[in-house]
Amino acid sequence: MKVVKFGGSSVASASQLKQVTDILESDTDRRIVVVSAPGKRSDDDEKVTDLLIQIGESVENGKKDEKAYEKVLNRFREIIEELALPEETFTTIKERIDDGITMIEHKEPNGLDALKACGEDGTAIILSAFLTSRQHTASYVHPQEAGIFLKDEPGGALVLDESFDHLYELRKRDGVLVIPGFFGYTKEGKLITFSRGGSDITGSIVAAGVKADLYENFTDVDSVYCVNPSIVENPKEMKYLTYREMRELSYAGFSVFHDEALIPAFKKRIPVCIKNTNNPEAPGTMIVADRKDTDGDVVGIASDDGFITIYVSKYLMNREIGFGRRLLQILEDEGVSFEHAPSGIDDMSVILRETALSKEKEDIVLKRIKDELEVDTVEVERDMAMIMIVGEGMNQRVGVASKATQAFKNANVNLEMINQGSSEVSMMFGIHADGIEKAVRELYKVYFT
Amino acid sequence: MKVVKFGGSSVASASQLKQVTDILESDTDRRIVVVSAPGKRSDDDEKVTDLLIQIGESVENGKKDEKAYEKVLNRFREIIEELALPEETFTTIKERIDDGITMIEHKEPNGLDALKACGEDGTAIILSAFLTSRQHTASYVHPQEAGIFLKDEPGGALVLDESFDHLYELRKRDGVLVIPGFFGYTKEGKLITFSRGGSDITGSIVAAGVKADLYENFTDVDSVYCVNPSIVENPKEMKYLTYREMRELSYAGFSVFHDEALIPAFKKRIPVCIKNTNNPEAPGTMIVADRKDTDGDVVGIASDDGFITIYVSKYLMNREIGFGRRLLQILEDEGVSFEHAPSGIDDMSVILRETALSKEKEDIVLKRIKDELEVDTVEVERDMAMIMIVGEGMNQRVGVASKATQAFKNANVNLEMINQGSSEVSMMFGIHADGIEKAVRELYKVYFT
Repeated sequence: MKVVKFGGSSVASASQLKQVTDILESDTDRRIVVVSAPGKRSDDDEKVTDLLIQIGESVENGKKDEKAYEKVLNRFREIIEELALPEETFTTIKERIDDGITMIEHKEPNGLDALKACGEDGTAIILSAFLTSRQHTASYVHPQEAGIFLKDEPGGALVLDESFDHLYELRKRDGVLVIPGFFGYTKEGKLITFSRGGSDITGSIVAAGVKADLYENFTDVDSVYCVNPSIVENPKEMKYLTYREMRELSYAGFSVFHDEALIPAFKKRIPVCIKNTNNPEAPGTMIVADRKDTDGDVVGIASDDGFITIYVSKYLMNREIGFGRRLLQILEDEGVSFEHAPSGIDDMSVILRETALSKEKEDIVLKRIKDELEVDTVEVERDMAMIMIVGEGMNQRVGVASKATQAFKNANVNLEMINQGSSEVSMMFGIHADGIEKAVRELYKVYFT
Repeated sequence: MKVVKFGGSSVASASQLKQVTDILESDTDRRIVVVSAPGKRSDDDEKVTDLLIQIGESVENGKKDEKAYEKVLNRFREIIEELALPEETFTTIKERIDDGITMIEHKEPNGLDALKACGEDGTAIILSAFLTSRQHTASYVHPQEAGIFLKDEPGGALVLDESFDHLYELRKRDGVLVIPGFFGYTKEGKLITFSRGGSDITGSIVAAGVKADLYENFTDVDSVYCVNPSIVENPKEMKYLTYREMRELSYAGFSVFHDEALIPAFKKRIPVCIKNTNNPEAPGTMIVADRKDTDGDVVGIASDDGFITIYVSKYLMNREIGFGRRLLQILEDEGVSFEHAPSGIDDMSVILRETALSKEKEDIVLKRIKDELEVDTVEVERDMAMIMIVGEGMNQRVGVASKATQAFKNANVNLEMINQGSSEVSMMFGIHADGIEKAVRELYKVYFT
């Protein structure tokens, strides 16, 4: 049994949905389908989810954005007409959108989440109807019915373990099952969504739950590139990747697959294949537990900006048992999540995402560090970027760091931070954000050309 | 006014003490002298402090080591006779040694510290007597009289701030003042010693207290070498170093100057000069607040073994606010001091000194990490070494890391850890201890030849 997930561009239009159906028909193992909301049909098009958010926010502000509302309805109406589906398909979708809007008007909790989820939900309703119209046994399965239970966490929704048992029951059902991605329910029956791109997570959870042989993630690229193609032209494609490699790459800017989507698949050891809806014959990129050729080569280069460094120095810091712990305690008290905390003898740096530290929080945190830890200096540096090179076995291979640092030198980019040794499969470099492109190009040169 | 400190080999014999006196006479600014215990006169000689420890432990075990006792007395007797000092000089020293032994026999707290301190004390008594016999105004000043007050901390004795005010009073006194190094007193009047080599600390505290123009630290080398001369033959000498550079080098194995000795001098901005007792005309190595030629070059390479790594991995670690803090809390609860804690996305390593983690503690710590943090894996790696390259401004210079990592590659030594970015003046590399010599030699090649 295969679980197949189609991304926004793969379900953006009737013709794309026909292509999706062809893909499903070409392999009867493709039994469960998870779908995103309709994405862009061209570069200047709008994503349905963006429109839904626009509507939701306008309703919150007391004046519904009728233009956006009509656009969403038209997107669905067009697809439904082109696929020659019964009028009730449209009515169902419209009702759910209207319900979401009403919830927001009545200031019900999670009204916005309910409205945002209508994009994926609409796609699922349409696809199941279309499959049925093509004489397949197919059904729409609501995430609550499927048993996707989540808990609301500060960092985003997390799946509850019991979901996997519920999902396993889906194996008993006949035909093709179509599940909308991106959302689930709390035990109290509240709809909650994952972060953007969360349909990848739904797909992974479902694949893990039904113990699929393969989780196919259809998107709009033939495979995952080893580096951001907007920085390096025609970069090398990756054929095989391990879960760990993919997770590290996703963390530092690889958006082709959702950062956390890998976890459920990883935990149940379900192989993942990233494929192209418009070129389904291409082998794609396989993400697996083990890769045969893990010879320490770098398989990918990721880069991400938007980082901040807090630098603290204090004489005899290394004599003070508990200093590092107390610094991290301050961050925790203030609800500030940090990424790394490398330390020297009398110095310590904390690296965070800019999104984790508002200006107000920054003032509070710095004051507390000064007052409570009696440090000699505390400084904040903004506009930092992280570049990550990733490859299984690289921590056991002599010379990997040497190549990388040579590339930074060639790019004339100063290394503000090197973090190597904590991870077995990656090496991380901190630089000023303006050096990203130069550095990534030089890294690509030394590792891939 | 200069404060001058003479190390063990500089006061090992009568002829060395004459040389010390010549040095004092050649510069009347040298007003305060801090001395160590008599060290080795030749490679197969014994240090007086080692003998005193032997005696102390034998007394603790119920049977005084008479042989060691005689050896110590003979060392002092020989020096006193050769310098033609009055018999009472010897009597005073012997009395203090016997007092220390009696304290241990009576199981008085700090008896062993009192006995250990007799080496430095004896040297100070002898040197002040010898200066007096040469018609100088000179006096022995007991650390308690000088006002060197310490507090007992888990990591070793720390000086109390009020000591500096007491010491400043010494400026009012005439002639040359001779102070034994290595020990001070608690506010309750208990004698406590610094860690081994602690006379450097006494000298630095005194220099800071009297606000000396210079703190001269006489030892048995012409200057500080940029790398361990037992690994690289005839290495380059360092003329100028900053406090920060010296402190980082000392931390990772440079034994020429005590790791913590620099702090008092640093705090009061007293320049330090490392000189050779047997070649006092050589300029030595100056340790100062600022160095003119801080152009990002590496000035020294230090290396030290005896490190352990605890590696922890857990999926979604970076989503768990407080994970790092809780890991460090466990170490703190168990009284385990750590050196560094680099972290990845789902991994974290803690690097500690082997001395900080006994086998029993290791079992407790690992169990707590497993049980309380619910990690996926926790592993311990022993026989790790740290190599540090040091130089002001290196964090702002492109290509420093590239040279270093090239050297490790040339040495065919795998980098287990790179820690760069936390310190502005150093870069630290973790390797397996068996690679130290190869790596240091290659680093020396790339930076100094």
